[in-house]
Amino acid sequence: MDITESNLRIAIIGGGSMATAIAKMLQSNSLSFNWYMRKRETIKKFKELGHNPSYLSAVRFNINKIKFYNNLNKCAENSDLLIFVIPAAFMHKGLENLTTDISEKYIVSATKGISPETGELASQYFINQHQISMSNFGVIKGPCHAEEIALERLSYLTIASENNELATVVTKILGTAYTKLCTSNDVLGTEYAAVLKNVMAIASGVAYGLRYGDNFQAVLISNAIKEMKRFLDVVVPQERDIKDSVYLGDLLVTTYSQFSRNRTFGTMIGRGYTVKSAILELSMVAEGYYAVKSIYDIMMELDIHMPITKAVYLILHERIAPSIEMKILSDELQ
Amino acid sequence: MDITESNLRIAIIGGGSMATAIAKMLQSNSLSFNWYMRKRETIKKFKELGHNPSYLSAVRFNINKIKFYNNLNKCAENSDLLIFVIPAAFMHKGLENLTTDISEKYIVSATKGISPETGELASQYFINQHQISMSNFGVIKGPCHAEEIALERLSYLTIASENNELATVVTKILGTAYTKLCTSNDVLGTEYAAVLKNVMAIASGVAYGLRYGDNFQAVLISNAIKEMKRFLDVVVPQERDIKDSVYLGDLLVTTYSQFSRNRTFGTMIGRGYTVKSAILELSMVAEGYYAVKSIYDIMMELDIHMPITKAVYLILHERIAPSIEMKILSDELQ
Repeated sequence: MDITESNLRIAIIGGGSMATAIAKMLQSNSLSFNWYMRKRETIKKFKELGHNPSYLSAVRFNINKIKFYNNLNKCAENSDLLIFVIPAAFMHKGLENLTTDISEKYIVSATKGISPETGELASQYFINQHQISMSNFGVIKGPCHAEEIALERLSYLTIASENNELATVVTKILGTAYTKLCTSNDVLGTEYAAVLKNVMAIASGVAYGLRYGDNFQAVLISNAIKEMKRFLDVVVPQERDIKDSVYLGDLLVTTYSQFSRNRTFGTMIGRGYTVKSAILELSMVAEGYYAVKSIYDIMMELDIHMPITKAVYLILHERIAPSIEMKILSDELQ
Repeated sequence: MDITESNLRIAIIGGGSMATAIAKMLQSNSLSFNWYMRKRETIKKFKELGHNPSYLSAVRFNINKIKFYNNLNKCAENSDLLIFVIPAAFMHKGLENLTTDISEKYIVSATKGISPETGELASQYFINQHQISMSNFGVIKGPCHAEEIALERLSYLTIASENNELATVVTKILGTAYTKLCTSNDVLGTEYAAVLKNVMAIASGVAYGLRYGDNFQAVLISNAIKEMKRFLDVVVPQERDIKDSVYLGDLLVTTYSQFSRNRTFGTMIGRGYTVKSAILELSMVAEGYYAVKSIYDIMMELDIHMPITKAVYLILHERIAPSIEMKILSDELQ
């Protein structure tokens, strides 16, 4: 199917807050769409209430324009463009029942992070596991708290794809009065940046937890964006401006947010929680916890100078005391 | 006098919080120094209390190592290296009685901003008014709340000078366990950056006042650092990494701080205060209010694309409604 066809069937895969925010954007454009959610019960409640029972519940939906599915394969079969909005940690497990051939469909991923089992980015997962081609693939990235989309606070998103037409179509279906979208061809770069920022947010949280101040945070984040640039220049070499909002902006919104799970996780570690107790206390694992392992491996293999990543890795996975590691890191920053 | 002489006589000119923070650093290095304050009464109280009566009063000083002056000329005569820490708004007025010839002395400026009367940076003021040469001049810049120095929270400062020896000496006298210093040769660039950040902080405040969210702030600041780079590349063309903490870090600490006067001023404007009533309410004028005029003039003359500066200028000096101007600006950001 041609991506520019007006009868393109769109599906959202996932029922969390970002999935709901994306649904809201589609609805702002009066589009009908399919929506897969795992639990039949959630769908039932959603229909009764007219909003997602668990996430962004202030956002009302016109139920008539949504076809809900709790069968992933049926949803995929009946759709041309699949927007995946699931945590990377659930990518393998959550999609293991996806047996429908999606290799010819358009796949857009708003998935954050890296698969903990395989270290794959979303693009790599879909290429490896579902035989899609890079030219049918795109990602939604940028500084974006879903909660602010719910409030219609102006947000800027970037659609990265090697397929310009696909990117352009997605900017159209998601562009609203409160969302501005631009395109990029840096798929892997924006995916890695979204992974790296979580590592940086953990570092920022650890520093905060250890009572380093705002002066230090500003220096840490200036060094963080340089470290991200060094990584991307080696791993995904291509022309890019690291100060674009999809890189720097996304880093800022995450590291300066008190609500970032990664930053909160880091803060607990800085305050003296063990990794295990921090995970228990938060009842979830911060994405950066897995991500830093993959990034650390790449950094070692390709010999990239990444002192912040190294510090986070050693603190989380080698049990080095945060205070010692941040002291060492602080000597490397400038 | 040779800057590397061990009997170099150091003076601090100014009695505010940053002056006090710098005095603390000197004292951490067990240095004796001269300290000029305008009011005899302040000096008297300082000596009685053992701390600055008005600023950073938790910082205790060994009074025996300080020679206080309330005569600026005498203080200048008896010193070789003068560290000026006065608001740019008082540069002309506050120093109009400085008749001592300081043209052969070493001048280091921690003055922020731009002279409202003449649009001069500190370097330009000292060259024009006191016939100093650029090779005897340096600036102290970087992300630095004085309050955090008082708490000995690790901070990073940059000494910019065309005179490497001067820069190195200053890093030595101010480097402590809680301050890391590096050098730069970009005097005008770091001075302009410290001016521009205040304009950006006003924009950030206006957006916040108008209830734009964190997603927007992250995009605004990503665009702000690009705008600063465009300005510096034209006005002070030389090799620099705008992501260095003296540029990006300083922008971050100012724009993300709730305590920044410029941001607070912007927030009030965004909330609907007139410029006049915001100034009255704050009982001071935010530096960026004057600065944006000078920057706007340069931008117009040299035809530099600076939509954020333009928006702040139009809001503050041409009475364009903040909501309208931010809407226009938001269409230019990406």
